[in-house]
Amino acid sequence: MNQDYIQPDNWSIIEEGFEKDRVESSESLFSIGNGKMGQRANFEEQYSGETFQGSYIAGVYYPDKTKVGWWKNGYPEYFAKVLNAPNWIGINIFVNGETLDLNTCIKVEDYRRELNMKEGWYQRSFVATLPNNILIRVEATRFLSLELDEVGAIDYQIELISGDATITFQPYLDSGISNMDANWEEKFWETIEVSSSENQGFIVSKTLKTEFHACTFMQSEVLLNGKKVELEYKEEKEIDKISFSYKISAEKGDVVSLQKFAGYVTDMNHDRNELIAAAKNVVSTAVSIGYRGLLQDQKDAWEKTWEMADISISGDVKAQQGIRFNIFQLNQTYSGKDERLNIGPKGFTGEKYGGSTYWDTEAYCIPFYMATKDQQVARNLLSYRYNHLDKAIENAEKLGFTNGAALYPMVTMNGEESHNEWEITFEEIHRNGAMVFAIYNYVRYTGDFDYIPEKGLEVMIAVARFWQQRATFSNDKNKFMILGVTGPNEYENNVNNNWYTNFLAKWCIEYCLETLKKVKDGHAEDYDRIFGLTNLSDGELMKWKEVSDNMYFPYSDHLEVFLQQDGFLDKELIPVENLDKKHRPINQKWSWDRILRSCYIKQADVLQGFYFFEDQFEEKELARHFDFYEPLTVHESSLSPCVHSIQAAKLGRMKQAYEFYVRTARLDLDDYNHEVKEGCHITSMAGTWMSIVEGFGGMRIVNDQLSFNPRIPEEWDAYSFKVNFRNQIVKVEVSKEKTCFNLEGTAAINILVKGKSIEVHPNSAVEV
Amino acid sequence: MNQDYIQPDNWSIIEEGFEKDRVESSESLFSIGNGKMGQRANFEEQYSGETFQGSYIAGVYYPDKTKVGWWKNGYPEYFAKVLNAPNWIGINIFVNGETLDLNTCIKVEDYRRELNMKEGWYQRSFVATLPNNILIRVEATRFLSLELDEVGAIDYQIELISGDATITFQPYLDSGISNMDANWEEKFWETIEVSSSENQGFIVSKTLKTEFHACTFMQSEVLLNGKKVELEYKEEKEIDKISFSYKISAEKGDVVSLQKFAGYVTDMNHDRNELIAAAKNVVSTAVSIGYRGLLQDQKDAWEKTWEMADISISGDVKAQQGIRFNIFQLNQTYSGKDERLNIGPKGFTGEKYGGSTYWDTEAYCIPFYMATKDQQVARNLLSYRYNHLDKAIENAEKLGFTNGAALYPMVTMNGEESHNEWEITFEEIHRNGAMVFAIYNYVRYTGDFDYIPEKGLEVMIAVARFWQQRATFSNDKNKFMILGVTGPNEYENNVNNNWYTNFLAKWCIEYCLETLKKVKDGHAEDYDRIFGLTNLSDGELMKWKEVSDNMYFPYSDHLEVFLQQDGFLDKELIPVENLDKKHRPINQKWSWDRILRSCYIKQADVLQGFYFFEDQFEEKELARHFDFYEPLTVHESSLSPCVHSIQAAKLGRMKQAYEFYVRTARLDLDDYNHEVKEGCHITSMAGTWMSIVEGFGGMRIVNDQLSFNPRIPEEWDAYSFKVNFRNQIVKVEVSKEKTCFNLEGTAAINILVKGKSIEVHPNSAVEV
Repeated sequence: MNQDYIQPDNWSIIEEGFEKDRVESSESLFSIGNGKMGQRANFEEQYSGETFQGSYIAGVYYPDKTKVGWWKNGYPEYFAKVLNAPNWIGINIFVNGETLDLNTCIKVEDYRRELNMKEGWYQRSFVATLPNNILIRVEATRFLSLELDEVGAIDYQIELISGDATITFQPYLDSGISNMDANWEEKFWETIEVSSSENQGFIVSKTLKTEFHACTFMQSEVLLNGKKVELEYKEEKEIDKISFSYKISAEKGDVVSLQKFAGYVTDMNHDRNELIAAAKNVVSTAVSIGYRGLLQDQKDAWEKTWEMADISISGDVKAQQGIRFNIFQLNQTYSGKDERLNIGPKGFTGEKYGGSTYWDTEAYCIPFYMATKDQQVARNLLSYRYNHLDKAIENAEKLGFTNGAALYPMVTMNGEESHNEWEITFEEIHRNGAMVFAIYNYVRYTGDFDYIPEKGLEVMIAVARFWQQRATFSNDKNKFMILGVTGPNEYENNVNNNWYTNFLAKWCIEYCLETLKKVKDGHAEDYDRIFGLTNLSDGELMKWKEVSDNMYFPYSDHLEVFLQQDGFLDKELIPVENLDKKHRPINQKWSWDRILRSCYIKQADVLQGFYFFEDQFEEKELARHFDFYEPLTVHESSLSPCVHSIQAAKLGRMKQAYEFYVRTARLDLDDYNHEVKEGCHITSMAGTWMSIVEGFGGMRIVNDQLSFNPRIPEEWDAYSFKVNFRNQIVKVEVSKEKTCFNLEGTAAINILVKGKSIEVHPNSAVEV
Repeated sequence: MNQDYIQPDNWSIIEEGFEKDRVESSESLFSIGNGKMGQRANFEEQYSGETFQGSYIAGVYYPDKTKVGWWKNGYPEYFAKVLNAPNWIGINIFVNGETLDLNTCIKVEDYRRELNMKEGWYQRSFVATLPNNILIRVEATRFLSLELDEVGAIDYQIELISGDATITFQPYLDSGISNMDANWEEKFWETIEVSSSENQGFIVSKTLKTEFHACTFMQSEVLLNGKKVELEYKEEKEIDKISFSYKISAEKGDVVSLQKFAGYVTDMNHDRNELIAAAKNVVSTAVSIGYRGLLQDQKDAWEKTWEMADISISGDVKAQQGIRFNIFQLNQTYSGKDERLNIGPKGFTGEKYGGSTYWDTEAYCIPFYMATKDQQVARNLLSYRYNHLDKAIENAEKLGFTNGAALYPMVTMNGEESHNEWEITFEEIHRNGAMVFAIYNYVRYTGDFDYIPEKGLEVMIAVARFWQQRATFSNDKNKFMILGVTGPNEYENNVNNNWYTNFLAKWCIEYCLETLKKVKDGHAEDYDRIFGLTNLSDGELMKWKEVSDNMYFPYSDHLEVFLQQDGFLDKELIPVENLDKKHRPINQKWSWDRILRSCYIKQADVLQGFYFFEDQFEEKELARHFDFYEPLTVHESSLSPCVHSIQAAKLGRMKQAYEFYVRTARLDLDDYNHEVKEGCHITSMAGTWMSIVEGFGGMRIVNDQLSFNPRIPEEWDAYSFKVNFRNQIVKVEVSKEKTCFNLEGTAAINILVKGKSIEVHPNSAVEV
């Protein structure tokens, strides 16, 4: 843990006291989003201290040209950058002409931030003594509307404490923004038009290269003691900025406030040539609903979300706060409404990890969305990859593969690879297996087998082809091998026979062969169509089978463990706990070569395979591998603790499972990796959800049935969660004494609890 | 072979006929240099076609900030770029106001380039029909003076063929130049002052960041039919350019010429604030000697160089031309006069391979300079590394090494690492061993053991320390291993137990331990000094010995060969000759991952070890390893064919040795790697020299004696070379029938010929 300033609270994230060196961390933690746009918790008013400005529009990116000292063939042409979008939140404040800037105030008291997760709004309040000795109390609340998802609303209230004064609100839009992540301090947005229509302001701008067009808009209202006042205002336009100044004289004790309605419309959803008209329309709607109306809608929308997605924990407020923060952020990031979007590792909370989509989605996020949303949402996430299949085939062709073999990108915005380390892009190929695992996982959970003949099978065939072509036959060992890969443990590069990759490759081929048979039997027409479309032949299937039947797996007879890769036992195997603290985290302290030749594991690697395919291993095998690998794991990936938590729970090691849970749940709140100011770890938050549901709850799907094996950490009194299983909602409440199942649905279902089948009827609780 | 337009000639490189698509290749091949500066064979007059402009000043570079998508700890901060320096050769030509530009002429006939290697000048001649139908014959000759090594001289003659005309010569200097290798088209030079003094022009400019200051200067004279004429001239100054226009009216048949004296003085050798005065001094000296005088000096200087360095071959003009081209370029690149300079892989012929110094110098170049120059030159090359020892220790510290361990940089200009691929910078550590091998090789050849206590031993200790710390103890194999390296075969990265690296590491430690004993016995005072200086202890020496005594070497019992690295036999071992031609060269056709997992070897790796340490292996072992590895070798490094040629010759496989010889000797002339337009492969040219002297001549040092085992390729009638052995010069003439030894020196020496000792007396030939 690197920080502990966040106040424990069941439903809110709270910071108290103004500390300049926490500003950037809090800007990440108090971020808001609505699936379509996101906003770091930057101050509305001017701030001259250290800050990391971030406003983001889903799907808008910049393809930064790949430039490396030494070009390797096949390199992607660009590296996708998440873009800081035009500023829509800005409101300059002048009190008797003096600028409000928390960095220069004489005193800042009663400073408090609250991110109310239950209702979906963010508030900052403080009492500031300005350099001119005027004392004001500020309360600024904002939210990004889930309903009107192109709109953000801000209520910026100022109470005059020390005496009468003239207050000027200057709400503005600014497209002259820059990116934190810019190699040469260049700008990525070009302003096309700055215009206004009465008290509405608009800036049309476009991204360079990608030419996304956005119209940033605003309209504001001023209130005195809660009543709207009509004021003269001064409009100012600059080359990439527009502002309106509203000046109001107030007396001691008065509360004056500005309500700003602002946001973006883009050509992803509107006619490029009619963006101002669209913006006008949107902002007028927002104004007509009004701040209070929008806020009420927001509360209602979040209530609905929580109704399904909440996990409650009693007896452990920090754990409760952690899981809600995770669920809240996941819902802020991805709504499932738009098939073109996906879940970026930092969501809308920072710029890092450039592109939008990683294998995180398939391996970690799908279970969460599958169980807490309509199953169409998970289907959309699968379709995202189906829609990118042609690009994945192209990507594989660039690397010398043929005949429709596909390699899905490591990072992508639109299906093209947009990451550019050779050891990742070219070699971290296990991601390809995750695409197929997600299909398997989805069908297993939802029973929606139709997805396979409709879309999934084509993906599975292309991936199986990849594995068959990627395998190398070793005459020396008389086995097929996969040489030159990077496993999930990215602290090793270009290794041979990463066990996880080999296992996944074999599984992908076998699952595809087995599925082909099923489709042949059950969907003969689709089978013929796909067989023809993909130019499959029985001869080719034989070649796949030869590879999957003869795959090599590194194994130590002595230790009875699968080896992470060839040569793993040649490393100096010193447990992490014996490593001097000053060397941690190793990714910040050690040079890359030292990390590579060390035994230290960034995140579950062999254990990731045990997680995905647990049915294929006995519990004592899991224990043996867990005991061998976990002590060598530094968990320097946010995706690491959750898998380990689930496995520790499965092994009944609840203390360890709980520790991992806290680490994943409060990774950002407590800043375990000392980097939260760069943004939150969104995709791993779905792993946190899994730690509870799959870890403590022990939820699995066994032969089309829900199965649970509930356990509870000693620290908790009870916890509960809901899952949407095949369109019926099962509520699970676990306490130390019992587990209670409740079904919201229409038809009774059988549930396995610790291997024993129980029947649960709609709206009638069953206790076990 | 990719081109064959170079005319065979014993002493010159000749191109005939103007072909626009050969311009850039020829710009490399006809490059001139004098150790202090170099110039690609760019046209003096304007040329609007494709061209690669290159003027280079030894030691002047730009540290381009390292920018990669994903930073790895320990990355060097910059990547050194070789800089195109201000243009000193430019002479615009106007005939009746029409610009001469070979790209726009109506016709270009009798086009011919000649690089006269014997005399050290370059000439281009042609007959051009200008767009205005005027016919002129041009003969432009230039050279970079070996004597006045800051000066180049150009004689640009124009004969009027078609009738009377007015000719304008506009010699100019231009510092507004750009680099081919610039990530963002930025400029690397800033012009400080453009000035003139009568007919002398000066531009003072400096490089950005490194702040090298240079004054580029010129002065010209005009001649009519060989007689100097005084003309009015027009001076023009621009922000980074200065020109003088000389206009002369001539009649049909007249020959008018401009002689331009130009070049650079820099603050590496002059007071930064007095550069113009220094330039004035230099150019005035040059003008006073005159073009003819300078040219005569040039011929004399090159005659002297060839007297010692020439290798003559009779019966094979292409082989002869090849070796002379190699020797010529080596002498153009490095004179040995300046301890701060070294031998860049592309010399002064291109920008590639950014920095100046690679392990090429130690492994390939030192033998050439050691045998064809005063031994002080080789000593200077060793001192270059000694002078960088502190930086090498710093470099190792950045990677976590301690206690004075040194890691020499992969690429450097000033001792700092300036290359930035992690798999090279961090992992291609065998380079460290080459530093020690060069000391061993130098002492073995020169007998100058004093170098060791004076400088060499400190380097050896720091390198031994590195190896001891870099080794990992494998409990599994009960041996020390070196994990995560890149061997000389850069087509594998991050491998474990590269045999060459492990062998070299063990050897470095053993050689250092053995040398420490010798120094203790023979130079007790130095021993104590160094022991104290380096904080050595007997305990530390024990640790070194533990590593060297227990080093692991991958070996196949079945094949009886050392394996290039762990897992090598798991690759698909398909000989290069069975590889479809369309896949070659693989570095241009295959993606990086495919290359890495293939068995193909870029350059000698295991065989490099057999080359360095041949005494430790029997000939049949060499044969076995050569037969195993050479068929898997694609020779896509210029450093590859020479070592294989030497080993094939040793094995008596003269046909193969000859093929490799031709490939190394004519690598650039025949453009084997399809890239000569980027520049020539200078460092491998020393390998070409070794192919003859060590390969065919079989020269070795055996117990302080020269030893030969002469062979001759079937294609040759005879060949001869000279070596400076311990300050006496031995000339070796080999024909099919006999070998003749001649000694220029003062004391008789014993030479081993095919293992038999013969005595050679000064100036009295011995035939064997």
